Amino acid sequence: MKYSKLTGQRYKEKPAEATCASHIFMLRGGYMRQVANGIYTLMLPAQRIVAKIEQIIREEMNAIDGQEIKMPVVIPRELWEESGRYNEIGVELLRMNDRYGHGLTLGMTHEEVVVHLARTEAKSYKDYPFMLYQIQTKFRDEARSRGGLIRVREFTMKDAYSFHTSQEDLERYYKVMARAYERIFARIGIPEVVRVQSDSGMMGGKVADEYMLLCEVGEDTIVTCSNCNYLANREVGIGIIEDYPETEKPIEKVYTPNTKSIEDVTNLLKIAPSRTAKSVFYKTAQGALVLALIRGDLEVNELKLSKIFKSELVFANDDEIRAAGAIPGFASGIGLKNCTIIADPSVANSNNLVAGSNEQDYHIYNFNLRRDVPNAKLVDIAMARNGDTCPICSQGKLVLKRGVEVGQIFQLGTRYTTSMKMTYTDLDNTEKTPIMGCYGIGVGRNLACIAEARHDAKGIFWPITIAPWQVQINVLNLDNGNLKEVAEKLYLELTQQGLEVIYDDRNLPAGQQFAEADLLGVPLRLVISPRNMEKGQIEWKVRTTGESGFIDLTAAVNFVNEWVKNELAKINASCSLQQ
Amino acid sequence: MKYSKLTGQRYKEKPAEATCASHIFMLRGGYMRQVANGIYTLMLPAQRIVAKIEQIIREEMNAIDGQEIKMPVVIPRELWEESGRYNEIGVELLRMNDRYGHGLTLGMTHEEVVVHLARTEAKSYKDYPFMLYQIQTKFRDEARSRGGLIRVREFTMKDAYSFHTSQEDLERYYKVMARAYERIFARIGIPEVVRVQSDSGMMGGKVADEYMLLCEVGEDTIVTCSNCNYLANREVGIGIIEDYPETEKPIEKVYTPNTKSIEDVTNLLKIAPSRTAKSVFYKTAQGALVLALIRGDLEVNELKLSKIFKSELVFANDDEIRAAGAIPGFASGIGLKNCTIIADPSVANSNNLVAGSNEQDYHIYNFNLRRDVPNAKLVDIAMARNGDTCPICSQGKLVLKRGVEVGQIFQLGTRYTTSMKMTYTDLDNTEKTPIMGCYGIGVGRNLACIAEARHDAKGIFWPITIAPWQVQINVLNLDNGNLKEVAEKLYLELTQQGLEVIYDDRNLPAGQQFAEADLLGVPLRLVISPRNMEKGQIEWKVRTTGESGFIDLTAAVNFVNEWVKNELAKINASCSLQQ
Repeated sequence: MKYSKLTGQRYKEKPAEATCASHIFMLRGGYMRQVANGIYTLMLPAQRIVAKIEQIIREEMNAIDGQEIKMPVVIPRELWEESGRYNEIGVELLRMNDRYGHGLTLGMTHEEVVVHLARTEAKSYKDYPFMLYQIQTKFRDEARSRGGLIRVREFTMKDAYSFHTSQEDLERYYKVMARAYERIFARIGIPEVVRVQSDSGMMGGKVADEYMLLCEVGEDTIVTCSNCNYLANREVGIGIIEDYPETEKPIEKVYTPNTKSIEDVTNLLKIAPSRTAKSVFYKTAQGALVLALIRGDLEVNELKLSKIFKSELVFANDDEIRAAGAIPGFASGIGLKNCTIIADPSVANSNNLVAGSNEQDYHIYNFNLRRDVPNAKLVDIAMARNGDTCPICSQGKLVLKRGVEVGQIFQLGTRYTTSMKMTYTDLDNTEKTPIMGCYGIGVGRNLACIAEARHDAKGIFWPITIAPWQVQINVLNLDNGNLKEVAEKLYLELTQQGLEVIYDDRNLPAGQQFAEADLLGVPLRLVISPRNMEKGQIEWKVRTTGESGFIDLTAAVNFVNEWVKNELAKINASCSLQQ
Repeated sequence: MKYSKLTGQRYKEKPAEATCASHIFMLRGGYMRQVANGIYTLMLPAQRIVAKIEQIIREEMNAIDGQEIKMPVVIPRELWEESGRYNEIGVELLRMNDRYGHGLTLGMTHEEVVVHLARTEAKSYKDYPFMLYQIQTKFRDEARSRGGLIRVREFTMKDAYSFHTSQEDLERYYKVMARAYERIFARIGIPEVVRVQSDSGMMGGKVADEYMLLCEVGEDTIVTCSNCNYLANREVGIGIIEDYPETEKPIEKVYTPNTKSIEDVTNLLKIAPSRTAKSVFYKTAQGALVLALIRGDLEVNELKLSKIFKSELVFANDDEIRAAGAIPGFASGIGLKNCTIIADPSVANSNNLVAGSNEQDYHIYNFNLRRDVPNAKLVDIAMARNGDTCPICSQGKLVLKRGVEVGQIFQLGTRYTTSMKMTYTDLDNTEKTPIMGCYGIGVGRNLACIAEARHDAKGIFWPITIAPWQVQINVLNLDNGNLKEVAEKLYLELTQQGLEVIYDDRNLPAGQQFAEADLLGVPLRLVISPRNMEKGQIEWKVRTTGESGFIDLTAAVNFVNEWVKNELAKINASCSLQQ
């Protein structure tokens, strides 16, 4: 393609609305423009990259017997009602009515639609297992879009759904899918993506893993180990902490006026937070009161807690706390009524802690959970911390990192096949319920993540497998002698070789050409200049490494062809190793 | 692919809900399933065809400097308000609010979004001309979906938009686009698609052409000529009729009780309908009364009429007709007040017609428009008829045919660039308004139309360029001797040649295998049977022509490779000729 035919302004300045590298460079480089909050138009360079990412995903899905289908963007309300999610999912599910008043929604995920399809198509055990996938537009009405394509409202996603007749077969295929995901991330140029234990969230199901690119713009916190491969989303991550077992001592009251927090108490009593027990009161959606007891140096992981009650939780107010017989600010689990008490093992495994007394202005010394609140249920509800000991190797220390989710895989189980009454006839002629897995990759978010992981101060360097073009030709002084002729001929010859070439035919000053080239991030740059042409040479430069050199014009086509082939081979070789 | 891994039931019976061939066969053959009214899921065979159609469209758009982009499905209300279409377009534009109450719509066409993009990106005359296109999901809340993929609510469309600095340049590019469209229809296997003059409808703009596949399931009526190439949508088509010029005679009243229609009057007075003038009253959206006068043997073309008033028209009721001084059933243009009178030339060019008298139970003889209603505006508002004389060659007779619109091209002009204040700086430093064209092709509708045009009683035969697979292998009696081995080896070898093969590995009875193969419409079928294998041969059969023969197994791979290459070359050769 000739640059003069490429529509899109390129900017020198950082746009005011952008803070992360991918967003900045993709606005500056003419890759995308905002249409509305969290809704973008992708321009030619971005669309070319997206098409390549999609093709790589498609090849990997086809290689594991995936069947590409296309489900609708607009989904009738009835299907969500059938699965029960119409009421479970909040306002992020966009709802509307058609001209006849029928309820419609914009698809944010397609479990319902795929089960609606599969239940009429796979009636016999012989039809199993199978996997259906699509690459399709989705909409999720996020409260806050951010980071350009990192978190948007409208996005393109590959969503895949597998159907099995046994848990064993689901688990077998789950591993096959995980390998395909690793190959995808390697092929699109971010092999460093890690697989992280995660929560299955609104999907239902029990086993779930997320693929995370560890980087500063990430919204997720990932628990990693300094010694082993432990990786978990902090939502489900576990840390081992030091316990303080002692011989139980009798309770002693202590006067602690005006202490409203653990910090106040520890300052007043000159003790460490790890020597206290903290009480946090919540209310379930059904209005039930919950007390979470945890050691004072830890935080409650509300996701872990909410999963115990299968309900979102909100903080209880003072009246509700008093109604249970507790005093706000001075509460503990002792003597409460009408309140479910969940205690983290951290409280149980340390003795003689300072805790609330349920009496105004008093705390107690020597709180011992097993003795003093024998009805508390012991469940891990702690948030893992930097420096905790790894629960897997028991050696390394936990390190928290930021990450962006670039894909996720779920073992859904029968959540949807049961609610939507999908069955098949088994070999023994009985009707059984199939078991599902589902597997997503956001295309645009991956595009942005590649840019996050592969850029310098001047712009992006796209991996050869997904670059909008493989080779760029720049000419310094297009008016000089026969330089234009040379460039046009080289452009034509490279294109005829099947190479993807963008040729800057605009006769702009070198500085502007190179600045825009850096933004476009094409892997190999060829520079034709008067000085080098005197020697019959052109200059080549690799965007990633900065490596450069000169090559005879006559040898240029071969050189480029070989270079591109080698770069592609390198990435493919790295993928094969992973299988 | 192996048939055993293809998800989807195939049916022998015609589904109750389907009436046209494409719908019947695509349901029976497991290509698609309905999700809601006018909303479908495409299954693997259909998705494979769609991907090929899209790729052909993409190649042809890229070849004429089109830049593929991706605009959003969800469009903010503000953009439609800016162009003025938010109120112009009716309920077919689906509207909703996001979580913050901001108005959103589902894109049914993207003029607004593309102008929103282009107005910041193409500020200088140097940036012109350019063409942006996308292949993207659209939604139109049709009152009546029908014919499977022929008329749906959610559909994939290629929509392209070109921007120019002069009308001449738009006209030049319009021809380039028309040639690209001809190549697309030829390459996807329906070269018989014709280009038809059409109305530009809600798009605005003046020049518009539709591409039509003439076939019985079409909703449009196309005016064709028995002698020349005249082709027009009946909405804009013109027919030349026989006039009856005579010397004007004086008006005579005639008693015509209980005559409510032209038919009643002509029966009573024993005259031909062409000897009468018909009066039809309408009301504009603004409430203005309109009388359309036309010869009794013709029908009013309401689209032509509505364009005069730039308003949709509804029939006036009796009270409104009386208010203008006319008598319903006995009305004419004589002596009316507060009423705009539009007369078709057919009334002006025949004399001494029978017309209403504006008196109950009376008509008049010898109505002469120019004398009796001198204030009538003469405009062509007639519906062209079968047998009218062609307005182009003046020799042939018009023949009305049914057609399905498979694409359309518009010269939009400055309808959107003006309303949305898009300008560029011209060479002389003045700000000017760019001129636009827009060009659409519905992907799914083309898929359905190919099926309409290419089927027999047993199923579809897909053109080689878009077939879901190029070759199908059937085995009669897979258990017999080494037939399975032979088939697997042939499947592997053909696949390794880059051919797209579907292999029926299910060991079903021959009848069922062939019935399903006919539904799948793969161009070349290879049959491995015990009898032929005794001679070391396999049978081949061409789906389209029924042509068949035998080939030595050892020569089969070469044979198939050559056959596919030749079939593809034939279509490509036919396209080159058109350029």
